[in-house]
Amino acid sequence: MNFASDNIMGASPPVLQALVRANEGPLPAYGADPLTRAIERRFCELFEHEVAVFLVPTGTGANALALAAIVPPFGLAISHREAHVIDDECGAPEFYMHGAKMAGLEGVGAKIAPSTLESFLAGLPNHVKQMPPRGLSISQATECGLVYTPAEVAALAGIAHRSGMKLHMDGARFANALVRLGCTPAEMTWKSGVDVLSFGATKNGCLAAEAILAFDGQAAETLAYRRKRGGHLLSKGRLIAAQLEGYFADDHWLANARHANAMATRLAEGLTALPGVRLAWAVEANEVFPILPRALDAKLKAAGAVYHPWSELSLRDGERVRSDEVLVRLVTAFCTTEAQVDGFLRAAREAARAEAAE
Amino acid sequence: MNFASDNIMGASPPVLQALVRANEGPLPAYGADPLTRAIERRFCELFEHEVAVFLVPTGTGANALALAAIVPPFGLAISHREAHVIDDECGAPEFYMHGAKMAGLEGVGAKIAPSTLESFLAGLPNHVKQMPPRGLSISQATECGLVYTPAEVAALAGIAHRSGMKLHMDGARFANALVRLGCTPAEMTWKSGVDVLSFGATKNGCLAAEAILAFDGQAAETLAYRRKRGGHLLSKGRLIAAQLEGYFADDHWLANARHANAMATRLAEGLTALPGVRLAWAVEANEVFPILPRALDAKLKAAGAVYHPWSELSLRDGERVRSDEVLVRLVTAFCTTEAQVDGFLRAAREAARAEAAE
Amino acid sequence: MNFASDNIMGASPPVLQALVRANEGPLPAYGADPLTRAIERRFCELFEHEVAVFLVPTGTGANALALAAIVPPFGLAISHREAHVIDDECGAPEFYMHGAKMAGLEGVGAKIAPSTLESFLAGLPNHVKQMPPRGLSISQATECGLVYTPAEVAALAGIAHRSGMKLHMDGARFANALVRLGCTPAEMTWKSGVDVLSFGATKNGCLAAEAILAFDGQAAETLAYRRKRGGHLLSKGRLIAAQLEGYFADDHWLANARHANAMATRLAEGLTALPGVRLAWAVEANEVFPILPRALDAKLKAAGAVYHPWSELSLRDGERVRSDEVLVRLVTAFCTTEAQVDGFLRAAREAARAEAAE
Amino acid sequence: MNFASDNIMGASPPVLQALVRANEGPLPAYGADPLTRAIERRFCELFEHEVAVFLVPTGTGANALALAAIVPPFGLAISHREAHVIDDECGAPEFYMHGAKMAGLEGVGAKIAPSTLESFLAGLPNHVKQMPPRGLSISQATECGLVYTPAEVAALAGIAHRSGMKLHMDGARFANALVRLGCTPAEMTWKSGVDVLSFGATKNGCLAAEAILAFDGQAAETLAYRRKRGGHLLSKGRLIAAQLEGYFADDHWLANARHANAMATRLAEGLTALPGVRLAWAVEANEVFPILPRALDAKLKAAGAVYHPWSELSLRDGERVRSDEVLVRLVTAFCTTEAQVDGFLRAAREAARAEAAE
Repeated sequence: MNFASDNIMGASPPVLQALVRANEGPLPAYGADPLTRAIERRFCELFEHEVAVFLVPTGTGANALALAAIVPPFGLAISHREAHVIDDECGAPEFYMHGAKMAGLEGVGAKIAPSTLESFLAGLPNHVKQMPPRGLSISQATECGLVYTPAEVAALAGIAHRSGMKLHMDGARFANALVRLGCTPAEMTWKSGVDVLSFGATKNGCLAAEAILAFDGQAAETLAYRRKRGGHLLSKGRLIAAQLEGYFADDHWLANARHANAMATRLAEGLTALPGVRLAWAVEANEVFPILPRALDAKLKAAGAVYHPWSELSLRDGERVRSDEVLVRLVTAFCTTEAQVDGFLRAAREAARAEAAE
Repeated sequence: MNFASDNIMGASPPVLQALVRANEGPLPAYGADPLTRAIERRFCELFEHEVAVFLVPTGTGANALALAAIVPPFGLAISHREAHVIDDECGAPEFYMHGAKMAGLEGVGAKIAPSTLESFLAGLPNHVKQMPPRGLSISQATECGLVYTPAEVAALAGIAHRSGMKLHMDGARFANALVRLGCTPAEMTWKSGVDVLSFGATKNGCLAAEAILAFDGQAAETLAYRRKRGGHLLSKGRLIAAQLEGYFADDHWLANARHANAMATRLAEGLTALPGVRLAWAVEANEVFPILPRALDAKLKAAGAVYHPWSELSLRDGERVRSDEVLVRLVTAFCTTEAQVDGFLRAAREAARAEAAE
Repeated sequence: MNFASDNIMGASPPVLQALVRANEGPLPAYGADPLTRAIERRFCELFEHEVAVFLVPTGTGANALALAAIVPPFGLAISHREAHVIDDECGAPEFYMHGAKMAGLEGVGAKIAPSTLESFLAGLPNHVKQMPPRGLSISQATECGLVYTPAEVAALAGIAHRSGMKLHMDGARFANALVRLGCTPAEMTWKSGVDVLSFGATKNGCLAAEAILAFDGQAAETLAYRRKRGGHLLSKGRLIAAQLEGYFADDHWLANARHANAMATRLAEGLTALPGVRLAWAVEANEVFPILPRALDAKLKAAGAVYHPWSELSLRDGERVRSDEVLVRLVTAFCTTEAQVDGFLRAAREAARAEAAE
Repeated sequence: MNFASDNIMGASPPVLQALVRANEGPLPAYGADPLTRAIERRFCELFEHEVAVFLVPTGTGANALALAAIVPPFGLAISHREAHVIDDECGAPEFYMHGAKMAGLEGVGAKIAPSTLESFLAGLPNHVKQMPPRGLSISQATECGLVYTPAEVAALAGIAHRSGMKLHMDGARFANALVRLGCTPAEMTWKSGVDVLSFGATKNGCLAAEAILAFDGQAAETLAYRRKRGGHLLSKGRLIAAQLEGYFADDHWLANARHANAMATRLAEGLTALPGVRLAWAVEANEVFPILPRALDAKLKAAGAVYHPWSELSLRDGERVRSDEVLVRLVTAFCTTEAQVDGFLRAAREAARAEAAE
């Protein structure tokens, strides 16, 4: 009953097998190997666009490098105030951007509303004391498990571009968002105005495989140097390329994401059927954010369930977590089984029943 | 006949098997997993010292982070002028050190002589315009395949410490140097005055597994944040930890290094038996630097041999590469076979014979 | 009727005369001159403490260098969210701190309450993803013209020190706060726990003269290099030293500050006697923040008065600026005359009368 | 007899008078004042080009900001290995460029020969491990007192531009070089391919007045933010603008430079008439680099003469300083008098005579 995160699992079998297969024989170092080249071409096909691809081992590295490619050291990078790039990376973006500043906007479900962005920009002093906005970063899916539709992405991209900013998408859960929306990778990214993408695969079945995709030529130019300089160019490039080979083969990545999303929905349906349980935000990817009675939470923990409390900063208007309640996050993964979900729900129902009886 | 580098190979079998074994089941993320904890303890045993351990995926990341932990942004970091940290990392140390400067010293075989270091330090102006020396970095084995004895390390450490510097060892080929010297890891490092070590395992049988070992408490304190901020803390920590588990088990790492070194010696002996071939530097690890007649070089290339030309900057006094000669580097790896070495030597002998006949 | 700021004026006569006097003859460069040495000693006397003094030409430079001396690149620097270091310096602190992050707290009148600081610190995750708090910066006087008493400074210093932070005071209006409090420089700084001070003199009668005072030894050690590296060590050091000589002589600086404060009080008393005018915050230094009827504001502007609108973010509970009102800032300087204040007040009274008659 | 440097003097009288004149009355802060605007227009006239002008208080600040405007954090900046930007600024360029690297080339008299630059560039590996060259910095006059002719500047600019670099000129002694060459400011800069200029005025009669001139539009765009962020935008902008007003009026700056150069020539002629004295490099600006018998040097010092020893790294082929000789630098300034020069020469002649008699 471990729903702590989607990074607590190893690789899915096809990914691991591809890694084992790729282990044999000599290959050129530092990304000049045919496996890496093939993956670069694969990304171009998948995204229906010539795109510069930079494989890196971590999502934090991908995000920080991507932002550094679009925001100069004196610039402002804007994201939701609960974005991973603000809250969870120990200042990696500030480090890679050389002291550029992150500004965090409010927004329900960790989504940025176009009007919020516009009024923030309008309020910035037109003065050299003010760092000029140069990058906007959105998370797909968001830190509250919601997705931006292509139209929503395009609306933000429009404002960003008109204001001299480029648009970065943190796609740590790219696949989960994609299968939810049922659109193409191209529609969710460059066709909607995304300039640089952090394409995450680690959470959805790899061990350590992320890619920065630069649709913007200027950003692409600097990323080869920035990646090397950041220590994110692996000497044995096959490690990441092979994982992605297994990840993309036979649409395995989409299957993984669909499964994880389905498990989240199953979990949410079971939980919301219990008395006193409601969702803080809709389930649109592979994360469930129930507001639980504290007593239920305690019983679940006692029964061995593992999950984390969550922040209340981005609740919708009118919603609030009472003192006898707790807002938590449950994450499903590519390998979460129906049995695991059902086992958790059974425990939850028993706990609720016991609670009612007390 | 590929002797281009020791990073053109995949993982050695025990390392790969350990990785596959570790794939199952949920584990805490971000290095809080029991595998990582076990490896941290293993390092303490191996080095006979309580040491702070930071696993990272690349050697460039390890070196740059290690230097950043000992050199402030306004400081000077000193190394040999052909050191990897100066020549091969696209300025990663300068990036991680926030603009500190690298100073490169001369020295035969890419080794720094104590007298060279002393006279460099004596020549620095005692003025605020001069960045103060704070870190010394040596490569073990060096970029020319030589090793520092513990006494040589200690001599440099003594000068460094008396001058307010800390000592970093770039151990990209740590194991190769260790088995050559026949000393303990402790003797080659902290007992000789090393403050921070980049422990390399990638070249010697892993896919992407390096560790920063901080023997110095102050350096250790900042590295957890610096690693996270650099994007070098893997979410699925098992990836590196498992490789190192397989690497250390049954002294596999030492066996790998001994084998690679032996293959280098075999290669060197065969080559120097040929007319007109001599070594630029002694073979002390797993690299051979022959000076070849250009004609022989051309024939070897034509026969399919793969290796790289090398720099002549650090030849010993009196040695020089004539215009009809070329200085090259051949690297052997844990998986280089006697047959491969002998095949290359056969090709070389044939080429030499043909040359003589022309 | 120009109350735009206290940096719109040149030097006060004694300061200018000292500058002219110091122009003659050769003097050693880069701060090794006797004038600079004398000023350094003068600061030690004034502050009753051996203190490392670093003269610099700008307040932004002083603040950014001071923060860099106490906050490592991976650290968090905390200040009020409307602090000059956050809002008005184009990210100079982030630049000098090499990507450390500024966190802005709320607080009435741009003052940080101890309880606000404590609850902020308590809410920080104890995790490597969180940049650790290392510096607290307070403005004396604040951006809303209020002063911290020594006891208030000490309370914040206590929390800061217990949490591993050092305390920086941005003393751009140091003298104005000092004469208001009637305490000694020592009491307002190191005796209350301040570790590093930006001592501002530019606004109070100099042309470009600021000093960083490091009461903390560790901070002092790095500042000589940091200042040089930032380009803030003047070659002709007499420029700043001479200004400060004129500034300190015969307590000229205190007289200047007392006068500016008195003019602010006179201005405030005159304004609050008008119908519909109230102060957003008490006048405790040389700034007045009246909330004016929009009609009065328009008439004053039409009559040629110069001043700036101000932010409403730090109003006290219950206070708000209505849509027919505007919150503005008026700053008095060492050279503001009673006639200028009275002229402005006369214009204001006429405008108010005209408004009433309309 | 103080020839230590040209920054040991205060301001020349017209500069000081302009400063005193400009002290009266309120002026907008942060460079929005009419004096600053007038100086900006003056630069455009002087250089016969629309140019973005950024006034700053120090030459180190000017150089570091200028380089940061043309070299990205992952780039290489090339200069002579004895350039001020490498040797004398405590790494200010590396700090402002965010960790970009300085590469130092050899060259007689601290001048870079086009062939040296070309062969350096040709030797750089075409690989991501190599930071790409983006900026070339030359000093006019050089650190050995030589000047580049416009044709020499143009030759270097041509190579730089063809290789993707922009050209920075460190004009700390701009005026001295200009009057020596007898060309226009335009000819010495943008007409010869200079993209960004550090225009120094401090050494030639000001107290603290430097300007960055960006002929390149891209560089200009970022400099306003970079200057503010570096703390180099003075709040009381009149301080620098007024100095430059006095500096430019009636070609005072050219007169100052002509005088200083003439005094250097007088000094050199007198010195080379002495037995055993020769010049290391020709006198082309306001610096003299004699190689003196050690005995003469000792007697001059004993007689109270002040000057510094100099580096032998950039002597011409065949020249060397014997063990009984010393290479020193004597600098003349706008206010050096004939009497001072002649007094020094008299002392030198007496010393030489005494030496001969011993």
